[in-house]
Amino acid sequence: MLTMQEALSRLTAYWTAQGALVVQPMNTEVGAGTLNPATFLRVLGPEPWRVVYVEPSVRPDDSRYGENPNRLQTHTQLQVILKPDPGNSQELYLGSLAAIGIDVAAHDVRFVEDNWASPALGAWGLGWEVWLDGLEITQFTYFQQAGGLNLDPVSVEITYGIERIIMALQEKQHFKEIEYAPGVSYGEVFGQSEYEMSRYYLDDADIEASRGLLDLYAGEAQRMIDAGLPVPAHTFVLKCSQAFNVLDSRGAVSTAERASEFARMRRLAGEVAKLWVDRRTELGLPLGTTVAPEPARPISAVQTDDRPRTLVFEIGAEELPPAELRAAREQVLRLVTEGLAGTRLEHGEIRVFGTPRRLIVVVQQVAAREDDHVRTVKGPKTQAPAKAIEGFARGHGVSADDLETEEFNGVPHLVLRRHEAGRAAPEVLADVLAKVVSGLRAAKNMRWNDPKLAFSRPLRWLTALWGDDVVPVAVSTLAAGRQTRLLRTAVPPVADIASAETFLETLGVNGIVADHEDRRELIVIGAQDLVYPDGRIDVKGEAALIDQITDLVEQPLPLLGTFDEGYLTLPDAVLTTVMRKHQRYLPVRDEDGKLLPMFVTVANGPVDVELVRGGNEAVLRARYEDARFFYRADLDTPLAEMTARLSRLTFTDKLGSMADRAGRIGALARQLGDRLGLGSPTLDRAAELVKFDLGSQLVTEMTSLAGVMARDYALHAGESRAVAEAVFEAELPRNTGDALPRTLPGALLSLADRLDLVAGLAATVGLPTGSSDPFAVRRAVLGLLAVHRSTPEFASLSLTDALAVAAAAQPVPVGPEVLAAVSDFLAKRLEQALTEEGRPVDRVRAVLPHFARPSVADTLLAQLSVAVGDADFAAVAAAIQRARRIVPEGTIASYDTGALKEPAELALHDAVTAVRGGLDPSVVDLPRFVTATGQLVEPVNRFFDDVLVMAEDPAIRAARLGLLAAVRDLGEGLLDWPQLRI
Amino acid sequence: MLTMQEALSRLTAYWTAQGALVVQPMNTEVGAGTLNPATFLRVLGPEPWRVVYVEPSVRPDDSRYGENPNRLQTHTQLQVILKPDPGNSQELYLGSLAAIGIDVAAHDVRFVEDNWASPALGAWGLGWEVWLDGLEITQFTYFQQAGGLNLDPVSVEITYGIERIIMALQEKQHFKEIEYAPGVSYGEVFGQSEYEMSRYYLDDADIEASRGLLDLYAGEAQRMIDAGLPVPAHTFVLKCSQAFNVLDSRGAVSTAERASEFARMRRLAGEVAKLWVDRRTELGLPLGTTVAPEPARPISAVQTDDRPRTLVFEIGAEELPPAELRAAREQVLRLVTEGLAGTRLEHGEIRVFGTPRRLIVVVQQVAAREDDHVRTVKGPKTQAPAKAIEGFARGHGVSADDLETEEFNGVPHLVLRRHEAGRAAPEVLADVLAKVVSGLRAAKNMRWNDPKLAFSRPLRWLTALWGDDVVPVAVSTLAAGRQTRLLRTAVPPVADIASAETFLETLGVNGIVADHEDRRELIVIGAQDLVYPDGRIDVKGEAALIDQITDLVEQPLPLLGTFDEGYLTLPDAVLTTVMRKHQRYLPVRDEDGKLLPMFVTVANGPVDVELVRGGNEAVLRARYEDARFFYRADLDTPLAEMTARLSRLTFTDKLGSMADRAGRIGALARQLGDRLGLGSPTLDRAAELVKFDLGSQLVTEMTSLAGVMARDYALHAGESRAVAEAVFEAELPRNTGDALPRTLPGALLSLADRLDLVAGLAATVGLPTGSSDPFAVRRAVLGLLAVHRSTPEFASLSLTDALAVAAAAQPVPVGPEVLAAVSDFLAKRLEQALTEEGRPVDRVRAVLPHFARPSVADTLLAQLSVAVGDADFAAVAAAIQRARRIVPEGTIASYDTGALKEPAELALHDAVTAVRGGLDPSVVDLPRFVTATGQLVEPVNRFFDDVLVMAEDPAIRAARLGLLAAVRDLGEGLLDWPQLRI
Repeated sequence: MLTMQEALSRLTAYWTAQGALVVQPMNTEVGAGTLNPATFLRVLGPEPWRVVYVEPSVRPDDSRYGENPNRLQTHTQLQVILKPDPGNSQELYLGSLAAIGIDVAAHDVRFVEDNWASPALGAWGLGWEVWLDGLEITQFTYFQQAGGLNLDPVSVEITYGIERIIMALQEKQHFKEIEYAPGVSYGEVFGQSEYEMSRYYLDDADIEASRGLLDLYAGEAQRMIDAGLPVPAHTFVLKCSQAFNVLDSRGAVSTAERASEFARMRRLAGEVAKLWVDRRTELGLPLGTTVAPEPARPISAVQTDDRPRTLVFEIGAEELPPAELRAAREQVLRLVTEGLAGTRLEHGEIRVFGTPRRLIVVVQQVAAREDDHVRTVKGPKTQAPAKAIEGFARGHGVSADDLETEEFNGVPHLVLRRHEAGRAAPEVLADVLAKVVSGLRAAKNMRWNDPKLAFSRPLRWLTALWGDDVVPVAVSTLAAGRQTRLLRTAVPPVADIASAETFLETLGVNGIVADHEDRRELIVIGAQDLVYPDGRIDVKGEAALIDQITDLVEQPLPLLGTFDEGYLTLPDAVLTTVMRKHQRYLPVRDEDGKLLPMFVTVANGPVDVELVRGGNEAVLRARYEDARFFYRADLDTPLAEMTARLSRLTFTDKLGSMADRAGRIGALARQLGDRLGLGSPTLDRAAELVKFDLGSQLVTEMTSLAGVMARDYALHAGESRAVAEAVFEAELPRNTGDALPRTLPGALLSLADRLDLVAGLAATVGLPTGSSDPFAVRRAVLGLLAVHRSTPEFASLSLTDALAVAAAAQPVPVGPEVLAAVSDFLAKRLEQALTEEGRPVDRVRAVLPHFARPSVADTLLAQLSVAVGDADFAAVAAAIQRARRIVPEGTIASYDTGALKEPAELALHDAVTAVRGGLDPSVVDLPRFVTATGQLVEPVNRFFDDVLVMAEDPAIRAARLGLLAAVRDLGEGLLDWPQLRI
Repeated sequence: MLTMQEALSRLTAYWTAQGALVVQPMNTEVGAGTLNPATFLRVLGPEPWRVVYVEPSVRPDDSRYGENPNRLQTHTQLQVILKPDPGNSQELYLGSLAAIGIDVAAHDVRFVEDNWASPALGAWGLGWEVWLDGLEITQFTYFQQAGGLNLDPVSVEITYGIERIIMALQEKQHFKEIEYAPGVSYGEVFGQSEYEMSRYYLDDADIEASRGLLDLYAGEAQRMIDAGLPVPAHTFVLKCSQAFNVLDSRGAVSTAERASEFARMRRLAGEVAKLWVDRRTELGLPLGTTVAPEPARPISAVQTDDRPRTLVFEIGAEELPPAELRAAREQVLRLVTEGLAGTRLEHGEIRVFGTPRRLIVVVQQVAAREDDHVRTVKGPKTQAPAKAIEGFARGHGVSADDLETEEFNGVPHLVLRRHEAGRAAPEVLADVLAKVVSGLRAAKNMRWNDPKLAFSRPLRWLTALWGDDVVPVAVSTLAAGRQTRLLRTAVPPVADIASAETFLETLGVNGIVADHEDRRELIVIGAQDLVYPDGRIDVKGEAALIDQITDLVEQPLPLLGTFDEGYLTLPDAVLTTVMRKHQRYLPVRDEDGKLLPMFVTVANGPVDVELVRGGNEAVLRARYEDARFFYRADLDTPLAEMTARLSRLTFTDKLGSMADRAGRIGALARQLGDRLGLGSPTLDRAAELVKFDLGSQLVTEMTSLAGVMARDYALHAGESRAVAEAVFEAELPRNTGDALPRTLPGALLSLADRLDLVAGLAATVGLPTGSSDPFAVRRAVLGLLAVHRSTPEFASLSLTDALAVAAAAQPVPVGPEVLAAVSDFLAKRLEQALTEEGRPVDRVRAVLPHFARPSVADTLLAQLSVAVGDADFAAVAAAIQRARRIVPEGTIASYDTGALKEPAELALHDAVTAVRGGLDPSVVDLPRFVTATGQLVEPVNRFFDDVLVMAEDPAIRAARLGLLAAVRDLGEGLLDWPQLRI
């Protein structure tokens, strides 16, 4: 059996043979190998660097007393840095797996999108998690920025999670069982330390002392920066980070404090990085300078056919993220279409395919050449001086005799006619395709060892054929040929393509399914076959997941795995969350929708099925074991104890703990309930429990299960189903489109939750601006609106009133200007939501005065959509609008009835008086309004027909305007009439 | 070329193959691999443990900005722990050197005594520095105690100094030139860090922040101890240690602070150690328990001869320290002599030889057996009851009939006569020799894997032959045979011995010279041959060094090495200090005593001479390069700047900086000079400069050169020879027997230095008690006395007066009780010194009242030693003593002359009056006193003959006693007469 220490030794030897230096772990606690100066500092600047080292990585937050089988406060990373990117780092990496005895052809090794960022370090990169049969064993990153500086050259960072790899290789269920050295287990060597350091980080570290350390470290870091010494400064930044992590694991960091400490660390790290680069430059770059790769030369073009042929163009990439792949297919289609349109080359249908490693353009019937073409260049008038004519001719390299005459608007001009031969297809296509490559952009782009290109992931090869001929495309360091790459495990891993027409076939023969739809079908049918006859795959419900899986493989191989039935006692949501979010497995259910103890995973390529199945099953088992560990611990914990833990969770430094917040939510929900007459014992109990599951271990691990677990734990603790449901519903909606509370207690709690959040944060952190919304206030506001709209019983509740109540309960003053700003924010979000739902913007704006009661706005909108087709409404609206248009702003709706003499005036006065008497302005009801105001239409029209409003006599004019103002104001409070475009 | 990273990899692999675990360096800064919990904690308790790891070891004090070729603030240790001691760890270690390509037979690999102790850790062990051709490459220690706990089993700790080893193997002159990895130098990888961290440790670390860290760390350590968590507690102890080291390298630690911080760390480390042992026990000792080796069985004795034969007994050891070897030879001789005396075995001469690895006893003519012998056991009286007689017989396993009768004091008793046959020699000798081994003790003893034995270093084998026969000695795990061990590099490394008579010859044939004198002669003659005809070895002056070298080798091979003549510009003392103290090389001088650029080193065994010579030359070159580096830097530094640096050196926290102290010394010397009329411009200037060389780099490195370098630097800086000499002499005497100042300015400064030290420390730290004297106050006091005694001009100076002056200048109050205690201490030391010089203790005590002017005491002693043979003195002394004996204590020397009537009374009165008039009590001069008081002898004798002192009349009696008291007091202030035994 390969021991852990032997594995470390072999990996080190492997990378040493690849030219890497070996250095030692950092001699101060670090959270990851990335923080070691051998990475963080060395990736900066132009000097080359290859290094491999072990880094015991300390994550105080992962402390579990050594009890959790997979979680350690100190785990062992093996870190590799390749600078510059050698261009084949994935292949080198696979070689390293082979070096520790992993048969990469038999296993399912996958590069799964992972975008890494460390806000505290001002660092980010793009890359992957590497999965071994579903187990994340390595982080693989193209490092783009560190300390806020762009990295040039880019470094490849490979970080192996050693304990996981060894557990998989040794088939161990608990890290303590790892055979660390011959006959000596990991637990025997590190178990006690794991327990004791967990105690320190979770229970015993002194908070005040840790704060003291943090400040002293930050002071020394700043002093060293001021002294121009990046190396000691960096060390102290690392110490800051550890001190912060200790505070965090002790639950002593508020959200605001976190933000400010991150900002401080980011600033310090940025200054360290700048200083390092400066110092290395001063030292004359002792390790030299990386040489950028040469641009590639295109092969010489040879055209062997003059009939139309198929064009195939393949852009080879390292594994693209599914979402980027989708977008890239569309982008390529657009670029190729536009590119060809800019030529005179005839062609047929353009199609684009994609797998994680390739984008393929297939264009049918591309002509062998452009048509020949005469181009006319307009010259001077025929009467122009000889000199001008000579000049024109000379300028085009011809003599004046070569010019012809043509009339423009009847005026004869000299023209030059150029007979241009159409270019050959390969030449034309080379230009077009080169631009496609250089024009490719992703949502998030990165750089690699290519000096000019940028994309979601590195582009590594081009294959371009027109018929039998290579299209001589060359872009930066890439030149197209007729060779494509197959699965990395294929023997050989490349294939020559005879002609464009056989390209997809060659891929297919080698197992690669280029078309997304074909792959999807293989997956769906394959998965259904696997679970037949007992199981069902919810193809529709899992559509997004299936689409994602489809773009994670080139040669899909669905595999059925099983898990111990015992895990089915875990809540359904826990099981499926793990399957979908963590593992991208398809859950399997029986006819009644009950989960079966199995799953479908989709491997890539012809793997050893038993091996891969076993591996995936082990991963799922470990994850379920984890979950069960937490779940059982939670079930053993009285609700009161979980609730008590909320006081150890800081919400924000100014808004108190989670316990404070839960207390406010409960109280507010009950206040609102009383106000609306919706109070109940269920609400009272649920209000006591709200958010208690944030104190559970499972929710700490999987925050997306908040609410779901509350319901589960409440039921297990003997609470009533209604109470459990209410506590669950308090968390709804968790995102746009999520379910909404269906019970009144749930809806009240949900509303109270969001009111509390918005009121408190608006007063302390401020409302979100731009894309920055760390506390998800926007989502909370949208939730507020959604819950109000979905609960008819809330129609009479004004959200602004409710906000004022919530504001009064905050531990900080919430001023009127804050509440006004929130109201404004609320109105804008409602406008946006309603518009996005497809409501005409004018009507949305017309009902917006009711934003505080969005369900009322809904009702009105519904009534409006009926009313707009209604002649009565139209007439009433027209009447009101007519009055509104003529009455100057600020005119008050009162008038001297004595000044009214004309019959039309008097008739209108009577009608207005009658309508006023019949209208309850507090009732917002459009049909009722239309009915009530219908009698006004005729008098209004008559008034305008018969009466000159702007009478000379000021008293009369005032009375008439006052009368019309009364008409105008009849609809006040119902709609914002000027917004309405009828 | 073997790169450094490859060497680390190979050593790790080697020890892994020996069953060691590989762990990672500590993730907090440590000064040595010993501090890593994989050593410090794991050596505790009974669990077995084998580990190897790299430890980058941080020594802030060794910071040199990366400029010094051999000194780094972070150097790389490779640490190995073997627990329990496997019994062959030296051999395993030599195997590891072979693993990195070192031919241990060609090189001179030596185990040179090194007793390791870490007061801050409560840890110590005995072992060696391993030298490779004179270069210290490894520390090798049998770990005896950690955290104040005795270690059982004992661990072997092997610590490789990797940079040094690699520099030697790669023949590099500067650590930066080491080929760290193929094509990458050490300097390129670590150079910048070395510079910047040096800056931090020497110049830029914030002292206040470091103190803050130290306290916070200590607080957390204590808290974790209180929480019962040794692992985090240990981590914080390490952090304390690093924070302390930073303060120290910043020159911010006073001696007192150092002591108190060490005490705190020692206490914390001790508590950590206890906790660890408790926790491991609670956990059930997860790694099991070490099994102690079985006791050895002696071979069965066979005796093949009945004539007297030679006995040879060899006790094989791991390399014994020279001083212990000398003592052990004597001890073995005594033990064997006494042991044999307790037997009835005839034997001839007993001789004992020794080399570092063996103690050999040779006894000539040991008889084959003891003589037969009759032993008589006395029984009851013949008249005793039958029962008693039966009982006696039964008790001895005989019947009553077997008893005989013998008279004792005339009373007939029954006796049992046993005819005992003499035992065979092997049997007798086995007992005697076993006791020799178990009785061996050194000045400092250690334990190893033997459960019962204890000695200076492990005992590994026994060889015991009587003639051709093995003597069946067995002690604990050792059983004697006929095999001895040769040099470790011999092939094979063992030899069978045919007979005792051929033992020394067999050793000799294999190169091992058993006799110290033989080896010494080989060295002396060999060295003299090597340097002939140009050079001379000062065999007499270097006797102690030669004796030491003689006991460092078994097969001495003197080698001549040379060094660059350029180094001869360094001061002689620097060159020879390095040769003698650091390298144990013999300096070579020409006829005029001038150093030649060469040295003699003595290798052990048949090495590759060129290789070893080259290695030793390289070591010396590096050391001289070091020294030159400092020397040049010092010469470039103005004296004023060095003096200024004294203010950065703390003397003690209460007594200020070294600058304060030097200021006090200078002022005091000038005050004393003025008082004695010995002031001079030389003194004034020297007083300004005193101790300035403590601010030099060379003296910081080699403190034993303080004063020597002051003289050198002063002369180079253009000071007068007299001033330079005075500054040098200020440091004299540096130890007992050292030279004393010969100039008055020097003597005054020396005195002032010691007065200041004693006054200040007595008032703050207290006077030394027992063996604890961290500030060497005892030595200072002895120096005070010696300087006073050697300087006639000081005769009138009272040291107690001078101390009072020094006391007044201290920054702390020095009370009269302190001064009284110092006086007492001074008197005691003088008494001790004089006694040790061989003066009769009664005379010493008689002159002790003059302790404050020890040169006066000297004069008096000299006069006394003449006087004691002189009849006049005897008569005077007898007269005075006679008076003293009769006069009751407290009697005052005044009397009513009118009461004196008797002629003898009156004659005595007249004589006393005359003597009194002729004596100046301030003149301390014994001959003069004798002359002056000679006239008293006759009157005193007559008085006692004629007068009854105790007259009945009280008035008369009082007058007579008063008169005698006057006689008594004549000698008062000259001698303490009652002490004198004449």
